[in-house]
Order: sequence, then structure tokens, then C-alpha cells
Amino acid sequence: MNRYLHALGCLTLSTLTLSAVGQTESFDLSDSDRATAQTLIDTALASDLAYDIVESLTTDIGPRLAGSDDEARARGWGARLGEELGFDRVVIEPFTMPYWERGDSLLTMTSPYELHLHATALGGSGTSAGSFDAEVVYFRSVYELSKAPAESLAGKIAFVDGERLVKSQTGAGYGPANQRRRVGWQHAERAGAKALVVRSVGSSSHRFPHTGMMSARVEESDGSEERSWAQIPVMAISNPDADHLRRLYNKGEGLRLKLQSEAGFQGDVESGNVVMDLVGREKPEEIVLIGGHLDSWDLGTGAVDDGAGVAITTAAAALIAQLPQRPKRTIRVVMFGAEEVGLLGARAYAAAHADEVAAHVLATESDFGADTIWQLASNVNPNANPAIDAIGRLIAQLGIARGGSEVPGGGPDITPLAARGVPTVRLAQNGRDYFDLHHTPDDTLDKIVPEKLAQNVAAYAALVWLAAELDVEFRQGSGD
Amino acid sequence: MNRYLHALGCLTLSTLTLSAVGQTESFDLSDSDRATAQTLIDTALASDLAYDIVESLTTDIGPRLAGSDDEARARGWGARLGEELGFDRVVIEPFTMPYWERGDSLLTMTSPYELHLHATALGGSGTSAGSFDAEVVYFRSVYELSKAPAESLAGKIAFVDGERLVKSQTGAGYGPANQRRRVGWQHAERAGAKALVVRSVGSSSHRFPHTGMMSARVEESDGSEERSWAQIPVMAISNPDADHLRRLYNKGEGLRLKLQSEAGFQGDVESGNVVMDLVGREKPEEIVLIGGHLDSWDLGTGAVDDGAGVAITTAAAALIAQLPQRPKRTIRVVMFGAEEVGLLGARAYAAAHADEVAAHVLATESDFGADTIWQLASNVNPNANPAIDAIGRLIAQLGIARGGSEVPGGGPDITPLAARGVPTVRLAQNGRDYFDLHHTPDDTLDKIVPEKLAQNVAAYAALVWLAAELDVEFRQGSGD
Repeated sequence: MNRYLHALGCLTLSTLTLSAVGQTESFDLSDSDRATAQTLIDTALASDLAYDIVESLTTDIGPRLAGSDDEARARGWGARLGEELGFDRVVIEPFTMPYWERGDSLLTMTSPYELHLHATALGGSGTSAGSFDAEVVYFRSVYELSKAPAESLAGKIAFVDGERLVKSQTGAGYGPANQRRRVGWQHAERAGAKALVVRSVGSSSHRFPHTGMMSARVEESDGSEERSWAQIPVMAISNPDADHLRRLYNKGEGLRLKLQSEAGFQGDVESGNVVMDLVGREKPEEIVLIGGHLDSWDLGTGAVDDGAGVAITTAAAALIAQLPQRPKRTIRVVMFGAEEVGLLGARAYAAAHADEVAAHVLATESDFGADTIWQLASNVNPNANPAIDAIGRLIAQLGIARGGSEVPGGGPDITPLAARGVPTVRLAQNGRDYFDLHHTPDDTLDKIVPEKLAQNVAAYAALVWLAAELDVEFRQGSGD
Repeated sequence: MNRYLHALGCLTLSTLTLSAVGQTESFDLSDSDRATAQTLIDTALASDLAYDIVESLTTDIGPRLAGSDDEARARGWGARLGEELGFDRVVIEPFTMPYWERGDSLLTMTSPYELHLHATALGGSGTSAGSFDAEVVYFRSVYELSKAPAESLAGKIAFVDGERLVKSQTGAGYGPANQRRRVGWQHAERAGAKALVVRSVGSSSHRFPHTGMMSARVEESDGSEERSWAQIPVMAISNPDADHLRRLYNKGEGLRLKLQSEAGFQGDVESGNVVMDLVGREKPEEIVLIGGHLDSWDLGTGAVDDGAGVAITTAAAALIAQLPQRPKRTIRVVMFGAEEVGLLGARAYAAAHADEVAAHVLATESDFGADTIWQLASNVNPNANPAIDAIGRLIAQLGIARGGSEVPGGGPDITPLAARGVPTVRLAQNGRDYFDLHHTPDDTLDKIVPEKLAQNVAAYAALVWLAAELDVEFRQGSGD
């Protein structure tokens, strides 16, 4: 009886495993394809190319705020790199964007005593009219702030506390914590606050504020969309600083803050995407797209966000470029511009390439740090899952598990393509420590472990080359 | 033969162990003393008192720069705390000191491109005449800088690189790394530099500069000592920033920095020590002294340096104050002022108590963070070592090994007493992570683990009570 139950258990588990990928058909790599992919893996694991790329990007260029001259220098750097690494076509595709700049800022607790706070403006924040000192109204969460009556915060500074972002491999803590950063300002403005200060959306216990973009207020009228931004200054403070204010508040102390911020929008400027192709030998019009984003927040040097992603995907394609022949399909690496401020490069790419969106057979972005990849997930035509499974079996040697399709999209900059039906895969990195660094001054090169970067390159090189070489249709509707 | 060698090995080891404490005589605690000490240990391990004290000091007072109004508030706080906790005598002993203030500062790399550096002035640094931009001359070490010919750095900024402070349990990496902070300025001034920038003396890979005091230049003439300080601005940059400059330098880039600093001495002010006694029931004139320092650098809130030490020693004495009777000798807790800027409180204490220095039978300070204690070391009359060994056997239950006398002194503020012959012990904390936090903005309450603090209190309470209760002479020459 026990043995019977055990056998039943195994059967159930086995069925679940099969159904997780939606298919029972088998697919095997040819010996020749397997050998080439293995060569790419072995070469990648022994190569420093990705580390050298991110070292150069962070050191020779440094921080790369979207729309800044620094980001423009990075595009020139990217295009030169693409030429040097043997891409067949390298194009900078410009677009126009509204430029937001941080400027100087200051946040000091002035009551119950004077304490300099580690703070920074959030992206989209407005300018303060000079420096002002005001009483603080404490909110445990953005939900509490959302209930503040209109004009109840007139002349005051709202402080939205909350918990530290929960650390997890998947980064699942980001979305919930991010609400205070995204929409807090809209509630604060409605309630008449003079400024909003929020606990940083980050998991670290270091005294770094985490910046990041707020969400625009979107109003629709006559079918057209009107986007507007915060008029008040909005700043984030580090977790230890937020802990400090919380303790004083819990002791019944009246808090006051003095705030000054020069942050604000500065008009339209040019940004751009760097698009680099290895042209396919048989189906050059079919595109397998990978990439990362070239812009970074200005506080750090954008090593893990997203110098690493640019380096991993560029290095993977560069290793493929060294093979005796191009794969059947085109491999395209895009270094997206202006990701941090609202996926502006990704939207510009989707618009500029509207005619060829349908020719994108698979897309994925590396934009979750520099830690090892632990899972391969996919969102493709079910008929193509056995092929993805076969790729998964090959890259299992890198410690990567085959996941289901529970992770939608292939990264932030792939969203506009995915929304238009482009199939996606995701090589999920371990994000446990990502939000310790993400959007802080601490996002610097020393946080990157070369061996982990090489594991990423190996997985991307094998996956992308096979996706471009195999006669597998990943797109919905075309290969059923 | 093998067995013989093995036995010999054991014998040798055993002999070494005995000789390490210099004695073979035995000393046992009485059942009654052992029971009281065990009660103190058990009570301490279950108590939150030390954590509550450091929570209050860091939260209610905040940073406490030596000589500042904040440090004065802390003295008031300390004296009130001593009264509340049942000390028999609480006295604030004032002294005068030169006041150095950090002021605002700015350090920006301006070539090969613009990059904000995470920098701070070192204690004793001079003021810049406005803001200036100058060429950087790179030195691999302070030793290299020391060889720079006179006037060879005229109009330039010297940058002294070096390695990150080596992490170790004993903190052994601090002294060697600290040379660039201590004496770098004297070489830079001699060579005519406009300013000096050094890699922080710290072990962390976070983007925090580490501040700390420089050494005064001491010149003797006619038997009197003349102390002088840096006229030029001297700043420390974080390890990741130093890595960045090093990489650019190694690529052959010409570096320029723009520097501004308001740091400087501001004349004489009052500081003070808080001296709190549990008066001994039999030998009130004999003093067992423990303590920590009340001042902190201004960047953090002085949690691990040295709110923890103040809290541990105060809590240990406060638990002893709850016993049915006072121990035979007086237990004195000193919250030293102005430690960071040159042990000024410790010197003032030794001077003010010159007449009773000989009555100090044992002294030790807790000033190495908030991690667990791993070793009991001592520097006492050899005849007293068996008693220290017996205390060591008792507190071994807390994971503390008995060490030798290789660690001189009982902490920075004990140095002036030790120099006058006062015997010392040291409850050595694990200092592996101390220099990640020490003197940085990141020295905040969240870095303290309450359970580790309680282990410290347990060890101090048992040691200090026994030292005050046992009829053991720790002083040299008196009990031979």
C-alpha cells in the first residue's frame, strides 16, 4: 500500500513536470549543434571578455544618466566596441526624450536635534523653492498616505515609512515595496504636502538612499493621454535613516526636516539605442534579440545595473561572431538608452522597428545584476518548448534549472516587443543581493565577480546561438 | 617511535599552555563567588539593558563629535543614566580642548571626465582657500610619497593609494594601513602639495569614506613640545572610489580633482568625562575601572564606535549594582570624552586623578565594536595570573579563550593609565567586520546584534565583579 502510494506520487510528480512545459514531445540537439554550443560554453567560461567590457564601461565612461552627455559618450563607446568585436552592422538610433536632472540636494532633520540624512531625489522629482523647514507627518505606508484628506498636509512634509525590501532570489519584494516610490507623490500632492520623503526601496542596511523613477500621472481626455510629473520635491532616505526617524517617532518626538532640492526636468534632449547585428546566413530577416541598457542612474557607475547586462549580452554575441560561420538567423544586440526613466529606448526601438517586430523570433534582456543564472524560463509557442527544454538540458551543466512560463516578458526593455507578441525567454539571475546595490552610489565595479559573469555569458551564448541556428519557430500562430 | 613523538608533542603543547599564562599555581573561585558571578552571567544574557542604552544614545542623542554641543548633550544623558541605574556617585569632569569641525566639502574628479567622489575630510585637516582644480600625482603608498622631493608637488594634489585594510579578528590590519591617514599630510606638505587625498583606512567595499584623526607634527625645542596640524586640506575617499582612480591611472589617464573643504580648528571648547562609581564596601579607595568613549565621529551615529562600549560597560556595572551588596573594591565606569581626536578625555582623566592613579587596581575599556568577545588577555602582576585564569575558566562558557599578555593595554583610553603602571585586562572582541563600519556614515544602530552585546555584558559583569571582590593584587610590585 505504501509502495503503491509512493509509485503514484512519483507518477504525479512526473506528470506535473511534463505539464509544466506543456509538451510531451521530445526534441534533441544534433551532435554537431551540441558540439558548437559546448564550445561556446567552454570558451565563455574561460573568457574575461564580459568583465573587460563592464570594466571599461564603468571606468572609461562612468555614470550614464539617461539623456546626459555621459550617456552620449557611452553610445559612442558601445558603437566602437561593436565594430571592434566584429559585428556586421552597428547603428546608433537616436530618439528625443525629456531630460530630468538630480542637481544638488540636502535633507537635514532639525528636530528633535540636527542630523544630516542620507537622501537623494527620486526621478521625476520637482524643485524646492529654496530651502524650507517643515513639520513631518509620519505614515506607516503609502496606503496610509493615500487616505490623508485633501489639504490635510498643507505646509508639511509627508514621510512614508514601510519595511525594507524583502530579499529574494526572484526579486519578488520589489513590486510591493516600490509602490511608495512610484505613486506616493500623487497622494502627497493631493493632500497638499510641501514635499514627500520615503524610505528607500532597497534591501540593504547601508546608509545609501536608493533612487529610481516615479510613475507619471496619466490622465486621458478625448482619447489622448496626458502625462504629468511631481511638482513637489520627492526624496528617498536610506534604510538606517528611516529606522532612525521611525524610532524617534515611536518615542513621541516631533520631527522636522529641512529640505532643499534642485531636481527637475530640463527640456528635451537626444538619447539613443546602439543596435548591433550578426547577420544570419540563411534567414537574415529573422531576428533573435538580446541586450541590456546603456544608461544608469547617476549615483553609482552602473556596474550591476546594467553594465553587467550590456557586457554579458555583447560578450555572448562576440563569442558567436568568432565561429567559422554565422548562425541561420540574425543575432541582434541592443544597448538600450534611457531605460531607467521609463523604458524610453525600448519604446523608441519598438516604434522605429514597427515593420520588423513580427520578424523578431525571440527576445530577452539581461537586466538583473551580475549574479549567477539559476533558471531558464520561457514564454514561447508551446510547440517550441521541447526545443527550449533541450537547450535547458544543455545549460543545466551551468547550474541552471528549467522553469516554466511563469515569468512573463524577457526583461524591462523587452516589454514593448512582448506586448506586440514577440516570444521571450529569461535567464533568471539570482537577485537576492541585487536590491542592496541597485540605484545606489554603491553600484560599482568591485561588486562584480568575474566568474559569475562568465557563467552568464556561457548561458547566453549557448541559448542565443541555438535559437538562431535551430529550425524552430518560437512565434505564436506561425508554427502550430 | 611514532607514539613516543606523539606523547612528546602533547607534553610540549601542555607545557606551552602553562607557560603562556606564566604560572603553574592554582587558584579557585569559592562556591559563593562562582555562584554570584554565574548569576551575573545569566542575568546579563537575558537582559536587553545594553541594547537599550546604545539605542537611546544613538537615537536620542545621535552623532557626538568631540567638543560639540552634541557631545555635551551626551554627557548630560550619561550622567542622568548613571543616576537612574543606581550608581553611588556620578560626576561630570570637564576639560578644555581644541575644537575641529568638518564643515562642508566637495571632491570631484574633473579629468578624464566629471565624477562625484565619496570623500570626507580627515580630522585635523585644514581649510581650502575656496574651491580649486588641480592635477593629481599618484602614489602607490605613503612610503612612495615620503620620497617625493621638496616642492615637487607644488600646485598639485597628492593621491595616496594603497590596499584595503586587511580584515582580521584582531584588527591587526589597522596599524599598517593607518600610516597614510596618520602621517601622509606631513610628507605632502613638505613636498609642497596643495592638498592630500588618501584611500580610506577601511576594509569595506561600500562607497563610504572613513574619517579619523591625523597625527600632529611634534617638534621639541628647549625641552618643550610643539604640536602642529595640517594647513592643507586632507581628505579620504571610499575604497570603490580609490579603485576607480587607480584603474584610470593604470590606463595612463591624466587625473584632475576639484576640491573644496571648510574643515578646520575653531578654537578651544569644553568637553568632559562622565565618571560613575559603585563604591566598594571594604576598600572603597581601590578602583577597578571600565568604560568606553562617549564621543563619536560625526558621520554616523557612533553605534559600534563607541556607543556599544559605553553600553556594555555601563550595563555590566548596573547589573552589579543590583546585587545585595557592593563588591569590596570600587567599580568605576568612565564615559570618556574626545577619544577620537587624540585620547583627550583619557589624558584629562589621568591628569585629574594623578593622585589616585596608583589606586587603580585594574582597568579596561570596551572600544572595538559590538561583536562577540573571543579572548581574555591580561597584563597584570604575574602572581595574579592564576586568578585571571580562574575567571577565564568561568567565562569560557561564553566562548571566550584565555589568551596571554600579548595584547598590551586595555583599550585606547586606558593607555595613559597603563603608561603609569595600572594593570590591564582585555576582553577582545572579534574585529573582523569592525573596520567596515568604523568612522563611516554606516556606523548606525542596525549593525548591532542584541545577543552579541549581551554576551559582552555577561563577560564584563563577571570579570569586573570578581576583580572587585577577590582579594587579589593585580598591581606590579605590591603583591610579589
